[in-house]
Amino acid sequence: MKNSMDLKDLFLKPRCVALVGVPREAGPLSPLGNLLRWGYEGKVQLVHPHAREIEGFPAVPEVSMLEGEVDLAVISSPRETVPGVISQCVDKWIRAIVVTNQGFADADPLGKRLQEAIVMASRAKGGRVLGPNTLGVVNSFFRFTTSFMPLEREESPVGVICQSGIFVVDAAHLMGGLGLGVDVGNGCDVGLTDALEWLAGEEQVKVIAIHAEGIPQGRQFIETGFRACLKKPVVILKTGRSPQGMRAALSHTGSISGDDRLLHGALRKAGLIRVWRSDEMRDVVRGFVKLPPMRGPKVAMVTFTGGGGIILLDAMASEEGLEPANLGSGAIQAMREISPPWMPAGNPMDIWPGVMKHGMAKTYRSTLKAALEDPQVDAVVCVALALPAYCGSQLDSVEVIRELAEKSQKPVLVWFYGPEKEEALHRLDREEKVLGVESLEKAAKVLGAKWSYERWRLAQQD
Amino acid sequence: MKNSMDLKDLFLKPRCVALVGVPREAGPLSPLGNLLRWGYEGKVQLVHPHAREIEGFPAVPEVSMLEGEVDLAVISSPRETVPGVISQCVDKWIRAIVVTNQGFADADPLGKRLQEAIVMASRAKGGRVLGPNTLGVVNSFFRFTTSFMPLEREESPVGVICQSGIFVVDAAHLMGGLGLGVDVGNGCDVGLTDALEWLAGEEQVKVIAIHAEGIPQGRQFIETGFRACLKKPVVILKTGRSPQGMRAALSHTGSISGDDRLLHGALRKAGLIRVWRSDEMRDVVRGFVKLPPMRGPKVAMVTFTGGGGIILLDAMASEEGLEPANLGSGAIQAMREISPPWMPAGNPMDIWPGVMKHGMAKTYRSTLKAALEDPQVDAVVCVALALPAYCGSQLDSVEVIRELAEKSQKPVLVWFYGPEKEEALHRLDREEKVLGVESLEKAAKVLGAKWSYERWRLAQQD
Repeated sequence: MKNSMDLKDLFLKPRCVALVGVPREAGPLSPLGNLLRWGYEGKVQLVHPHAREIEGFPAVPEVSMLEGEVDLAVISSPRETVPGVISQCVDKWIRAIVVTNQGFADADPLGKRLQEAIVMASRAKGGRVLGPNTLGVVNSFFRFTTSFMPLEREESPVGVICQSGIFVVDAAHLMGGLGLGVDVGNGCDVGLTDALEWLAGEEQVKVIAIHAEGIPQGRQFIETGFRACLKKPVVILKTGRSPQGMRAALSHTGSISGDDRLLHGALRKAGLIRVWRSDEMRDVVRGFVKLPPMRGPKVAMVTFTGGGGIILLDAMASEEGLEPANLGSGAIQAMREISPPWMPAGNPMDIWPGVMKHGMAKTYRSTLKAALEDPQVDAVVCVALALPAYCGSQLDSVEVIRELAEKSQKPVLVWFYGPEKEEALHRLDREEKVLGVESLEKAAKVLGAKWSYERWRLAQQD
Repeated sequence: MKNSMDLKDLFLKPRCVALVGVPREAGPLSPLGNLLRWGYEGKVQLVHPHAREIEGFPAVPEVSMLEGEVDLAVISSPRETVPGVISQCVDKWIRAIVVTNQGFADADPLGKRLQEAIVMASRAKGGRVLGPNTLGVVNSFFRFTTSFMPLEREESPVGVICQSGIFVVDAAHLMGGLGLGVDVGNGCDVGLTDALEWLAGEEQVKVIAIHAEGIPQGRQFIETGFRACLKKPVVILKTGRSPQGMRAALSHTGSISGDDRLLHGALRKAGLIRVWRSDEMRDVVRGFVKLPPMRGPKVAMVTFTGGGGIILLDAMASEEGLEPANLGSGAIQAMREISPPWMPAGNPMDIWPGVMKHGMAKTYRSTLKAALEDPQVDAVVCVALALPAYCGSQLDSVEVIRELAEKSQKPVLVWFYGPEKEEALHRLDREEKVLGVESLEKAAKVLGAKWSYERWRLAQQD
């Protein structure tokens, strides 16, 4: 009796999951631990050679003895046993299977043959396999995951697709969040393209973040990516670019990277946004989650350090298309009003002399407001001091910035410097419409990505 | 009666300082506040039109009325008055002068003329001016600073030279520390070259970090840099590289940037280490402060994520000269002992399967030890999980890494991933001989800088 649910839902929203080969305790390295902590509301059954019950869930010795319709099986038994277990699964019409263990194409020739056997066994009756060498799926909204690594549940609008569990375990730092996710691991069957199609179709996912070591079905991936980009931004970090990285990717997930230049052009044409460093994905993704769209390429800088403005200008010059805004007369006038007469008014809007005279709140309020209201300005980067409490509120800018950003239809980014930088960033972090970044280079990267996506969208409408 | 102290000591270690134009209160924007909090042990005199005493320090209405030998004068009176005040200073044989205010070559044509007048007035009797548009000097060891911005004192072995106060105020994040520092501001007289010579000669400075917007006396700077590099590493961030950044630098500190390619070749030949991003200086500097020298280019990676290893290989490929180490038989053997038989042993040393079997402490200890003892290995990058406490100590690696790094003569860097990343970094931060970094790209940058400096030093000995 074949399960008639969508394949995507079998993986992402299973009503019943069978765990094959879990430890006897729902400790930190068992998927059962996550399901318990997350409050998964579906049915859990276990397959265990000896235990008849673990943590209150029933266990049977064989897959064939599982009860009722099982949507998804998660296998972590020794590698030699996996093809046999999969045969039993598909015999029971379990169509969706996750194989978590390592030791397949990522390991030795025998592992490679075992991986081929996995695919053969599952396809015999229309089964599909995610993995091996994977944490599988994460669906915070559905309180479900197959991950054996401990995860914090977070209903964030970020969809994560990756080839290495690191991007699931550390999604908060590396991907900017994780509401729904698919780790394809070795990608023996379900691949990046399937995962992209799944997440593109999920309402709760507003931005997709991809880590790829290799893209085996390039054309399909690009076509699916194009359709996904019409709906939501897709950001990709492609690793294994260097010859040495490429060789390591081959032994990690068995990926072959191909010609990066060809790939690069195709990604770009399809609208995907590429990041080059693992420490930039988070900010770019959060820039899409938190900030309104960037309607043009022109950036104003409200800064109380000329030195900071120059760093930002250098960084913007490396981002295609971004330009410093030529301020309109309103913004220039606002600057003149708070500055001493000798202060040149322009962009970067250096407001330090104004701050010395009028204090932070007044100076920041009038300058940032004028920048946001200037039709020549498409986005604003604020450079702001974060000083210890004993300096008093005269130099505090957080409140003013968040109040003005809240009302704005333009992206506002803030880079803090000074001893209380982390605390100021943390205070801004909870705000919805303003993004704190750790460096001005990252501010430029976020705006470059936002404008690049908007430009691509506009081109599609022509 | 001319003061016979060294010019450097007049600026960095004045026995008596006169503050001209401080506010009536030692609030957060007064250099007096810093001197009080820092416990400066020299003599402080003030020049104020009305007050006769501020916070217990005597004040006189005119510079001519200051008592005894004054080593350094700090001027922050309105810009029009500055040339006159300087004349009074040199008339009193005050040779070292800091002018903090803005509004000179950084502002308008009048400001530019006033700046020329400053130089003329001081040179008339052999005075030297640091600034204008500067926070001046910082000497944590001597409990002295001229900064009107609030600063935390920190006896760190880092010497900071900059053209923007941001690198003083936020030295902890941007420069990796600040024990002794010189902000040259507009650099009308005392320039980058003087500051570099001063800090190169100070015992307490082990590493010099420079922010430059322009390098006006290029040849002298490079010659001084070469001599400094023979003694200690000198790291430089040159901003104003893009045409737009260059224009802004002109109006910020009046700097002209010149041909970056020429500069780049000269810096390199002289042994200076260049960083390209403002968010990389800190790690590179701390890599020199904390880690032993890197004696060769070969890097081993101890990781429990294949994905992390590939990111690091990509990043290393962008750093000149670094190579993944070909492990010797001892290290290979150690990996084989903790890994399942199917696991390929090599570099990156992927130890996840071993961790699953033997736990973190044992696996990490034997693998990292073997890597550090391998004569083929010149430095090690550890990739390590940072999980919440409920996961238990089975997955905790911090203690093992710091114990082994402590004993090692090779640089050990650690990148943590996972929810408790910040806490793990913080735990490592206090350790002397291991460096935690926020990304693998930064790990590669630090090692690239260390090897580049060591290679240059070796070449000088030939």
